[in-house]
Amino acid sequence: MNELIEMGKRARKASGQLANLNTDQKNEVLLLVAVLLEKHADLILDANAKDLELGKGMGLKGAIVDRLTLSGDRITGIAEGLREIVQLEDPIGEIVEMKKRPNGLLIGKKRVPLGVVGVIYESRPNVTADVAGLCIKTGNVCLLRGGKEAFQSNNAIVSIFHEAIEHCGLDPNMVQLVQNTTRESAVAMMKLNAYLDILIPRGGAGLIRTVVQNSTVPVIETGVGNCHVYVDEFADLAKAVSIVYNAKTHRPGVCNAAESLLVHEKVADIALPAIGKALSEGGVEIRGDEITCRLIPEAKIAVEKDWATEYLDLIISSKVVESVEAAVDHINTYGSMHSESIITENYSHAQYFLDRVDAAAVYVNASTRFTDGFEFGYGAEIGISTQKLHARGPMGLKELTTNKYVIYGSGQTR
Amino acid sequence: MNELIEMGKRARKASGQLANLNTDQKNEVLLLVAVLLEKHADLILDANAKDLELGKGMGLKGAIVDRLTLSGDRITGIAEGLREIVQLEDPIGEIVEMKKRPNGLLIGKKRVPLGVVGVIYESRPNVTADVAGLCIKTGNVCLLRGGKEAFQSNNAIVSIFHEAIEHCGLDPNMVQLVQNTTRESAVAMMKLNAYLDILIPRGGAGLIRTVVQNSTVPVIETGVGNCHVYVDEFADLAKAVSIVYNAKTHRPGVCNAAESLLVHEKVADIALPAIGKALSEGGVEIRGDEITCRLIPEAKIAVEKDWATEYLDLIISSKVVESVEAAVDHINTYGSMHSESIITENYSHAQYFLDRVDAAAVYVNASTRFTDGFEFGYGAEIGISTQKLHARGPMGLKELTTNKYVIYGSGQTR
Repeated sequence: MNELIEMGKRARKASGQLANLNTDQKNEVLLLVAVLLEKHADLILDANAKDLELGKGMGLKGAIVDRLTLSGDRITGIAEGLREIVQLEDPIGEIVEMKKRPNGLLIGKKRVPLGVVGVIYESRPNVTADVAGLCIKTGNVCLLRGGKEAFQSNNAIVSIFHEAIEHCGLDPNMVQLVQNTTRESAVAMMKLNAYLDILIPRGGAGLIRTVVQNSTVPVIETGVGNCHVYVDEFADLAKAVSIVYNAKTHRPGVCNAAESLLVHEKVADIALPAIGKALSEGGVEIRGDEITCRLIPEAKIAVEKDWATEYLDLIISSKVVESVEAAVDHINTYGSMHSESIITENYSHAQYFLDRVDAAAVYVNASTRFTDGFEFGYGAEIGISTQKLHARGPMGLKELTTNKYVIYGSGQTR
Repeated sequence: MNELIEMGKRARKASGQLANLNTDQKNEVLLLVAVLLEKHADLILDANAKDLELGKGMGLKGAIVDRLTLSGDRITGIAEGLREIVQLEDPIGEIVEMKKRPNGLLIGKKRVPLGVVGVIYESRPNVTADVAGLCIKTGNVCLLRGGKEAFQSNNAIVSIFHEAIEHCGLDPNMVQLVQNTTRESAVAMMKLNAYLDILIPRGGAGLIRTVVQNSTVPVIETGVGNCHVYVDEFADLAKAVSIVYNAKTHRPGVCNAAESLLVHEKVADIALPAIGKALSEGGVEIRGDEITCRLIPEAKIAVEKDWATEYLDLIISSKVVESVEAAVDHINTYGSMHSESIITENYSHAQYFLDRVDAAAVYVNASTRFTDGFEFGYGAEIGISTQKLHARGPMGLKELTTNKYVIYGSGQTR
């Protein structure tokens, strides 16, 4: 697709400049974008109104419309997000593990930008500014391919980035929005190996699966979370109830919400009725195995598919297991390697769970809802990786970098 | 393909055990393999003789036959390689950046195995032992898919691994050799996302390209090296001659050998005849631009394709450039992001080259031949990554790991 090849060429050119800016220059751009976003909020809201009108005409549903909708407050929030990125330490340029080899070569590992980052995303226009901000701070050019439902809003936001970048005398091609929002442009991005160093899909499970299966550009798989809370034989019941309740109900539509409850058979009689009561009062539908259904009158019977389902809703599956080993087996079989928690006061069970569960984040006695760049203390995130390569868990600034060996010689040969 | 799915299931099962072995247990296996390799050298040589006979019947050429051939010395070398891996520090289990968050959560990043590592490779049977050794040390199960020309040799080596693993009371499925060596088994591995965490192709450019373009499993792109030496306007001539000569002729068939020479126009008159003389005496064919051909009588005229070619032979392309900027542009256009070197005594030119060249390893005044796990001080390597994701440059033990966030709570909810 010619549009993308041309964008790719411009991106590579801009990359040479952006990768070598110092932190002050990058922060200057970001601060100016924040000012201009607030100053031109009306332009963004006008564009957003057009998107919403078109979207409603196309029959978009409630949750999507909510994610698509901007307001003065949301724009202020976006600007604040950029100011927070300015405050974060710039990871670029640091040289680690510098050492002198026996032959006199001085070898170090320098942290450098990835180069050109592609992102395919849906609905939420704030992703445009978040991604562009994180990329500028890390010296990465970004190629943004948002959904057609948010095109006007995304375009307005990118125009403001361009205004700020040009005001700073820099190449506006460091942030580019793909103008074609058909399926073809997404497919073309997945094959743009010559110009993209990485492709990150942000959105629903369907989008992520499509990108993983079709992209020849290296992909970071993000965000699908079939997270479990396991209530061990040695659980503190009060902690169990509050953590399960929090993990399920605090924000059910996000990837680190719990989707499945496992309870040790020795405490099922006591724990399940207590947890069931709390969840039911919170409006949660419970889909359980036979024992769960016997102990929680409100529960419906679960089918095999429930164990593997990310509901993203006020629904939870529930199963009684005979041991911590069985709980870990179940999680490693059905989980999506996102966030998993054990509730226990037993040292060996806690260690076993931490060692054996294969996930990005494994918790003892805490809610799965903490898997998040801000909660972990890394600031803004570009996504939560559920794969093992390159980055796992919340991806912040460091995860948008790679390394380059720099070697200082004095004539060495082999 | 059923064979691979069954292997994948066994691999996942073995992974749970292997990932949780301590270093002593893993080293015990490796040391026993080393002993048995030497003890059963005759069995391996017999198997290798069968491969060689079949291969010669199929008309295999000189270099491939050389890579395929084992000897008593080569087997001792393989065993020594395993003993060296035993000496390396086990990266697994280290927890870094452990910190207490304001809410009392204790969050750390634990280094864990990737899980199941797939490798598709050609000819050299020593790769079987190297890869299996590195994987065992890092707690990774490996699925090995060698070439059909080395099948008997690979099988004999894997049998010795199995003998050692079983003697230690462990699951032999931690090392598995794909028995089907048709194209179908390679294709099936590229789609084995459910069981493979990473796929590493080791071999020629054709194999690597095929895997990158067809694999849905995350791939590490390795080894293609179109490496340059740039002789700057401010080069020390003696260093330039010896480094270019070494980078080209020391071992022309490997990925970190130089394939292209760039010379600043202001020193071309002096540098090119001197370098040309050394290279010609070393039996190197020079394919140059017009100025090169004028200054080196032996040179032939280069065509566009030469700038992008990895010869892996005693051939080098040569071009005169007008500035360090032009040299960097040429490298970033035609290079394969492997290893690049500038020869200069000028501080600013050295820094510019280090900053602007986009490659895994960038050198000042040294031969590109140093890009290697041993030379960098990391011990054995599983390959040299030329991509930016996950690992870049020589991949040793640490590059075969990922991280898992471990979070110690006391009842925290959001």
